[in-house]
Amino acid sequence: MRIELELAAVYVSDAQYNRNIVFDTSPQGIRLYMLYNHWGLLLLVYVFIIINLALAAFEDPALFPLPMWATLIAELICLLAFTGRLVHYARVIPRQRFWNDAKNICIIVVIMLTLVDMIIYGSMKAAGLYGVRCSRLLRPLLLVNITEGRQLRRAFRSIRNALPEIFYVFLLFIFSVLMFSLMALKLFGKRGLQTNEGNPYFTNYLEIVFDLYVLVTTANSPDVMMPAYNSNVFFAIFFIVYILVNTYIFMSVFLAVVYNNYKKYLKEEVRQLVRAKRSKMVRAFRVLQETEGAEPEGAEPTVTQARWNQLVRVVQPGITSAHRQLLWSVSDTDKKGRIGKMAFVQLADLLNIQVITLKSRPHPLKTWQPRLYDSAASRFVCRVVQHKAFTYVYDVIIMVNAVFIGLDEENPLISNVEWLFLGLYLLEILLKLYTFEPRAFFAKHQFWNWFDTIIVVSALIATAINSALRAGGGYSSRQVLDIVFILRILRLVRVMDSIKKCRSIMNTLIKIGPTILTFGQLILVVYYIFAMVGMELFKGKVTFFESDSTDPERAYCGNPLLKGSVFAGLKYCKNNFNDIVSSFILLLELTVVNQWHNILSGAERGKLFLFQFFSQLNGHKNIFLLFFFNAVSLLLTTGFTTVTHVSARIFFVLFHIVVVIIIINIFVAFVLEAFFVEY
Amino acid sequence: MRIELELAAVYVSDAQYNRNIVFDTSPQGIRLYMLYNHWGLLLLVYVFIIINLALAAFEDPALFPLPMWATLIAELICLLAFTGRLVHYARVIPRQRFWNDAKNICIIVVIMLTLVDMIIYGSMKAAGLYGVRCSRLLRPLLLVNITEGRQLRRAFRSIRNALPEIFYVFLLFIFSVLMFSLMALKLFGKRGLQTNEGNPYFTNYLEIVFDLYVLVTTANSPDVMMPAYNSNVFFAIFFIVYILVNTYIFMSVFLAVVYNNYKKYLKEEVRQLVRAKRSKMVRAFRVLQETEGAEPEGAEPTVTQARWNQLVRVVQPGITSAHRQLLWSVSDTDKKGRIGKMAFVQLADLLNIQVITLKSRPHPLKTWQPRLYDSAASRFVCRVVQHKAFTYVYDVIIMVNAVFIGLDEENPLISNVEWLFLGLYLLEILLKLYTFEPRAFFAKHQFWNWFDTIIVVSALIATAINSALRAGGGYSSRQVLDIVFILRILRLVRVMDSIKKCRSIMNTLIKIGPTILTFGQLILVVYYIFAMVGMELFKGKVTFFESDSTDPERAYCGNPLLKGSVFAGLKYCKNNFNDIVSSFILLLELTVVNQWHNILSGAERGKLFLFQFFSQLNGHKNIFLLFFFNAVSLLLTTGFTTVTHVSARIFFVLFHIVVVIIIINIFVAFVLEAFFVEY
Ligand code: NA
Repeated sequence: MRIELELAAVYVSDAQYNRNIVFDTSPQGIRLYMLYNHWGLLLLVYVFIIINLALAAFEDPALFPLPMWATLIAELICLLAFTGRLVHYARVIPRQRFWNDAKNICIIVVIMLTLVDMIIYGSMKAAGLYGVRCSRLLRPLLLVNITEGRQLRRAFRSIRNALPEIFYVFLLFIFSVLMFSLMALKLFGKRGLQTNEGNPYFTNYLEIVFDLYVLVTTANSPDVMMPAYNSNVFFAIFFIVYILVNTYIFMSVFLAVVYNNYKKYLKEEVRQLVRAKRSKMVRAFRVLQETEGAEPEGAEPTVTQARWNQLVRVVQPGITSAHRQLLWSVSDTDKKGRIGKMAFVQLADLLNIQVITLKSRPHPLKTWQPRLYDSAASRFVCRVVQHKAFTYVYDVIIMVNAVFIGLDEENPLISNVEWLFLGLYLLEILLKLYTFEPRAFFAKHQFWNWFDTIIVVSALIATAINSALRAGGGYSSRQVLDIVFILRILRLVRVMDSIKKCRSIMNTLIKIGPTILTFGQLILVVYYIFAMVGMELFKGKVTFFESDSTDPERAYCGNPLLKGSVFAGLKYCKNNFNDIVSSFILLLELTVVNQWHNILSGAERGKLFLFQFFSQLNGHKNIFLLFFFNAVSLLLTTGFTTVTHVSARIFFVLFHIVVVIIIINIFVAFVLEAFFVEY
Repeated sequence: MRIELELAAVYVSDAQYNRNIVFDTSPQGIRLYMLYNHWGLLLLVYVFIIINLALAAFEDPALFPLPMWATLIAELICLLAFTGRLVHYARVIPRQRFWNDAKNICIIVVIMLTLVDMIIYGSMKAAGLYGVRCSRLLRPLLLVNITEGRQLRRAFRSIRNALPEIFYVFLLFIFSVLMFSLMALKLFGKRGLQTNEGNPYFTNYLEIVFDLYVLVTTANSPDVMMPAYNSNVFFAIFFIVYILVNTYIFMSVFLAVVYNNYKKYLKEEVRQLVRAKRSKMVRAFRVLQETEGAEPEGAEPTVTQARWNQLVRVVQPGITSAHRQLLWSVSDTDKKGRIGKMAFVQLADLLNIQVITLKSRPHPLKTWQPRLYDSAASRFVCRVVQHKAFTYVYDVIIMVNAVFIGLDEENPLISNVEWLFLGLYLLEILLKLYTFEPRAFFAKHQFWNWFDTIIVVSALIATAINSALRAGGGYSSRQVLDIVFILRILRLVRVMDSIKKCRSIMNTLIKIGPTILTFGQLILVVYYIFAMVGMELFKGKVTFFESDSTDPERAYCGNPLLKGSVFAGLKYCKNNFNDIVSSFILLLELTVVNQWHNILSGAERGKLFLFQFFSQLNGHKNIFLLFFFNAVSLLLTTGFTTVTHVSARIFFVLFHIVVVIIIINIFVAFVLEAFFVEY
C-alpha cells in the first residue's frame, strides 16, 4: 500500500512539474527515481555545471590565472559528477530508452571528448608544446542536456525547427546581397572614387560584399554611401533600394519566419505537454482506483477521499489541511466522498494553483491594545493612510526627491535632506504596517510592498554605513555611495505604479521575466561557444593599459599594427578577447551591431595572427582546426593575405547571423507572444 | 429603366471597388457621381497633388530655382483644382453629410490657410522682408484627404488608434531613460572620467539623457560606454542592463503594441468593408428585383438573367460573353434563369476574381505551317525546351555569366563574350515562344516570362547603343553602360526562381508589394513635413562643394563652425537641408539610425542659427513658430546656449520617435501580417 501510494505520488508530481521520464516501477526503482528528482541533487548538478562553465575564467587566457593542474582537476571532478548523474539516470529508466535518447549519447560523447582533449592538452603542455583546449566549446552542451532545462531545450528545438525555413530566406537574402554587390562593383568600381580614408572605393568584390553586409546592420551607414552620393545624387537610389530590400524587408521576413515557427512549435509543444500530463495522472489513478462495492460491471472505478488525502500529503507534505479540504471540495463536486477519473486528473493543475489565503485576520495591535487601536485618533490615521490622497502625496514627495537626487550631493544641506526623505519613506511603511495586517501586507504576491520595504531598509542601512564611514575618517566609500544612489533611484520607480495603465504594462513585463531568463541561458550557450573560439583566435592581440599607465604602447593597444587605427583612436583597447569577461562584453557590443566594423578592424589589424596560428597548428597537428581553416582558405582561394583578413570577418559575420538574425529574433518573438498573451 | 440600370451599376461598382460614398440617387445625381469616379478625373487630381508636392523642389531653398511668382501661380492652380474637386464632391453627396465629414473640413481649412499664407508671404517678399511659407507643411494632408487613398487613410487611422496604447509604453520608456540617466549622473559624474574628445564624461544631466537616448538606437554603442568601461569592468553591467531594458525589451514592446493594434483594427476595418459591400449589393438588388409571377406573398424577389446581363454589361463593358456566362452559371446554380438576393450579392466579388482563360489554343505556327511544325525535328525541339534539363542548363549559363560580369569588362574578349550570353538568352526566349503558345506565354500572370523578355530585349538595345557609340567615337557613355550592367545583373535573379521554396518566398514578397506602396505614401507624408521644417531651420548651414572645387571652405562644409568637426571629417557636407532631395536623403539616413548623432552635430554646430532665426521671427511676428520655440525654451529653462543645442536635438529625437518607433514598426507589422497571411 505504501509503495502504491508512493508510485501514485511520483506520477502526480511528474504531472505537476511536467517531467516526462519513464521509470522502473519496482519499489527500489521508485526510490531511485525519487532520489533522482530530489532538489538537493538537482542543485548539486547546477553547481557543477556552473563550476565547469566558470573554469573559463581560470584557464589560459585567464581572468584569474590558476595553475593548469588545478583547472584540470576541477574539470575532472565536474566530469565525474556528470557521469554519476548519468549513471543514476541510466539505472532509473529502461536500458532501451536510455540508448535511444540523443541527449544521453550527447552527454557521453561530450564527456569522452573532454577527457581525451584534457589528456592530449595536459601531455602537450607537460612536453612544453602549444595546445588548444577545443573541448571547452562543448561545455554549454552539458548545460543544455544534463539539466532538466526543458525550457532551454524547447527553445533550441524551436530554433532547429525554424532552420529550414530560415535557410531559404537566408539564401535569397545572401543572393540579394551578392547581386547588389556585383551591381555596386560595376556602377562604382570604374569611377575612380575614393573612400574617406583615401582608399579606392568599391573596387574589390569581396570587400564590397562585406561592406554591404555591414550596411544591412546599418553599422556603416551613411559612411559607405557618402563617396558615391558625393559624386552623384542619383547613386543614393542604389543605397536606398538596398536598405529597403535587405535591411527592412528581409530582416522583417526573418522575424516573420522565426515568429511563425516559434508560435507553431509552441502550440504543438503545449499540446504534447497536456497529453503527457493527462496520461501520468491516469496512471496515478489506476494505481489508486477501487471499484465501488458489489456492482459488477459498468461501475466506474473511483478513488476514496481517504486515499486521496494520503496521496496529497505524500505529494505535498507542507500543505495545510484547509487547503487540502478546499482542493477536495473542488474535485468532489457531488459530495460523494469518492471521485472518478475525470475529477482526479485535475489534481496536478489544482496543486499548481497558488491559493492566496486572504483571511481577514485582525491587526495584531488590535488584539494586543484594542482600546488604543480603536480610539478616534488611531482610526483617523488608518483612514488617512487608506485615502487616495495619501498615495498622491507620496508621489509628489518622490518627485521632489528625484530633483534633490539630481542636485549635488556634496552640499551638506542636500545630504541632510536625504535623511528627511528616508524618514518619510520609513514613516510610510510604518503607517501602512499600522493600518494593514502585516502578514497580508507582506503576502507573497504583494510585489510592490516587498520592493518598497527592501529598497528603503537597504537604503537606510547603506546611508548609515556611509555616514559612519565619513564621521569616522572623513572618508566616504565610493562603492557604498554607488549602492546608496542606485537604491535611491530605484525607489522612484514607484511613481509609475500609480498610473494604472503603466502598472499593467509593468506587471506584464515582470511576468515575462522567467521567459527572459530562459533566453538568457540560450544566449549564454551561444556566447560561450563564440567566446571560446574568439579567445583562441584573438587572445593577446590587443592589450588594455590602465589610464595611469605611462607605457608608450598604450596609444596603440600594445600592438604596433594598430598605430593610428580608428580602433585605437576610439580607445577600444579593452574590447578584446583576453579573458572570458572581456569576451562576453565584446560579444554583447557585437550583438548591439554598431561600430562592429571598427571593432573587427582591431582583430583584422593583427594581420599576422593567422600566420602564427597556422604555424602553431602545423607544429602540433590539431587536425580539426587545421581542416576548418583549410576549408575556409580553399573556399576563398584568394591567396593568404585575403584569408587572414577574411577569416576574422567570417567569425564576426557568423556571429551576426547566429545571434542577431536568429537569437534576437527569437527573443523578439518571445516578447511579442508573451505580450499578446499577457496584456 | 436605363436609369435604374445605371443606379444598380453604380452600386455594384461601388461594392466592387470598396467605395463608400452616399450620393443623390436622382438621374443627374447619378451622372454627377459617375463623373466624380471617372478615372480621368481621378488621374487629374493625382497629377495636381504631385505638382503641389513637387513645388518644394522649386521654392526657396530650391533644387531648381524658379521665380516666386511662378511657384505661387502653380500652387494657386493646384488649389483651384482641389476646390473644384471638393465642390464636385459637395454636389454629389447630401449637404448634411458633407459638413459632418472631418475630411472635407480639413481640406477647406488647408486651402484657406494656404491662401492666407501665400498672400502674407507674397506681400512680405514684395516688401523685401523675410517670410516663411508655413503652409507647405499642410500639403501632405491633401494627399491623405483629397485622393480616394483609402489604404493610406486606413494606415493613419490605425496609427491614431494605436497612439493611446503607445503613449503609455512611451511614458514608461521615457521614465526608464530618465531614471537610468539619473543613475549614470550619480555613478559616473563625480569620477572625473573623460570622453574620447577630452570632455567631462556624464556630468550634465540633459547631455546624459540625450546620450542614453541615442544608445537606445545603438548609434553610439559602444563609444558611450568606453570611458566607464575603461575605468572599471563592472560599469559595463549598467550599460548591459540599460540596453537589455530599453533597446531590446521596450523596442519589442513597441512593436508588440503597434502590431496588436494594427491587427485588431484591420479586422474591424475588414468587417466594416464586408458589411458596406453587402449593403451596396442589396441596394442594387432592390433596384432590379421583380417578384415572380402571380405568387402574392412569401415569394422571394429575384433578378432575371436578362436584367443581370444588362447590368454586368454596364458595370464592365469590356467583359467577354464567355466570361459573363461563366459568372452567371456560378450564380444561378439551380439553372432557374433568375437569382435571389443571396446569389446576387456575390457579384461584386465575382467581378474581382481574375479569370485566367487557359484555352489550349494551337500554336500559330501549327496553323500556318502544320507539316513543318509537326515534323520530328520540330517536335524534338519542343520536347527539349519542355524538359527540366533545359532550365538547369540555363541556370548554369546564368551562373557562368555572373562570373563573367564580375570580370573586367574592358577586356575585349569579355565584352565579346557578353554578346554570346545575350544571344543565348535571346535564343531561350525564341525557343520558348516556338514551343509555347505566345499569348499563353505572355499572359498577365506570367510574371517571370515578362521579366525575362523585358530585361533581355532592353539589354540588347542598350548594348547595341553602347557598341554604336564606341564604334562611332571611341566614346562609351557611362550612363548607358550603367543601365547595361544593371540589366545584366537583374537577369541573374532568374536563378533563384528555379528553387521552389525561394520562388514561393519571392512570390509572397511580390504580392506584398502594393502594401509597401501604401507604406511609401505614409512615409512620404511624414518625410515631407519633417523636410519642410528641417529646410526652414537648417537651410544653408552646411554647403556641399563638388570634389573638383578648390575653395578652401570645402574642408569645413562652408561653415567655419564645422572646422575640425567629425561631421566635416567624415565628408558629410552633402547631408544637408539645402533642398528637398537632400532633405529626403538625409531623413532616410536618420531613419536607418546610425551616425545620426554625428549628422546632428552638423546641425548643432551652426550654434548661431537659432539666434538668427529668433531675430527673424521677432522682426516678422510669425507667431506660431515663435510660440513653439518659446515653449521649448521655457520647458528647458537652461539658458539660450543650451536651447540652440537642444532645439536641434528635439527635431531629431521627434523624427526618431515618429519614424522609427511608430512608422517603421507599422511597416514591420505590415510585413509580418502580410507574410503570415500569404506564405
Ligand atoms: Na547602428
